[in-house]
Amino acid sequence: MRYVARVEVSLKPGHSDPEGETTRDALVELKYPIESVRVSKVYEIIFEAESIDEAKVKVEEMCRRLLANPVKDDYKYSIEEV
Amino acid sequence: MRYVARVEVSLKPGHSDPEGETTRDALVELKYPIESVRVSKVYEIIFEAESIDEAKVKVEEMCRRLLANPVKDDYKYSIEEV
Repeated sequence: MRYVARVEVSLKPGHSDPEGETTRDALVELKYPIESVRVSKVYEIIFEAESIDEAKVKVEEMCRRLLANPVKDDYKYSIEEV
Repeated sequence: MRYVARVEVSLKPGHSDPEGETTRDALVELKYPIESVRVSKVYEIIFEAESIDEAKVKVEEMCRRLLANPVKDDYKYSIEEV
C-alpha cells in the first residue's frame, strides 16, 4: 500500500533558531510588531508499506535515523493511505 | 492583542525541490521504499495586532513581502489569539 507521511521537525524549546531570528529581524525592519519567529520543517513523504502499523514503524525510524536530530529537534507526524 | 500565525510555505507543484530529492535519496540509501519527498517550511510568528482582521491583513502582507516567493511558492496560514 502507498502512504503519505507528514513529518514536522521543529527545534526543542530553548534551542536557538538563527533562521527564525533572521526572519524576525527582517519583519521588524519592515515595521511589523513581531515578538518572535520559530521555523520548522515539514517533510511530505510518499512511500510503500504493508500496513498502517508497518508504515508507523518506518516513519518513526526515518525520523530517528535521518530527519530529526535527537539532541535538538522534536518531531511529530501523521500518516494516511493514498 | 497578541496573535500567533502558523504560515506554511511550500513549493508550487512542478517546481523542483532539491532538498526533498536529497532527502529521498538518503532514505532510499537506508533501504526505505520511498516514492517522493517534498519539503516545506513553517513559520510560527507571534505578533501584535488590533483585531483578528488586522492580524490577517498583516500576515497576508508578510507572506507576500518576505516569506513566500510568488514565482515558486504557495502559502497558507492559520491565526489565533494567544
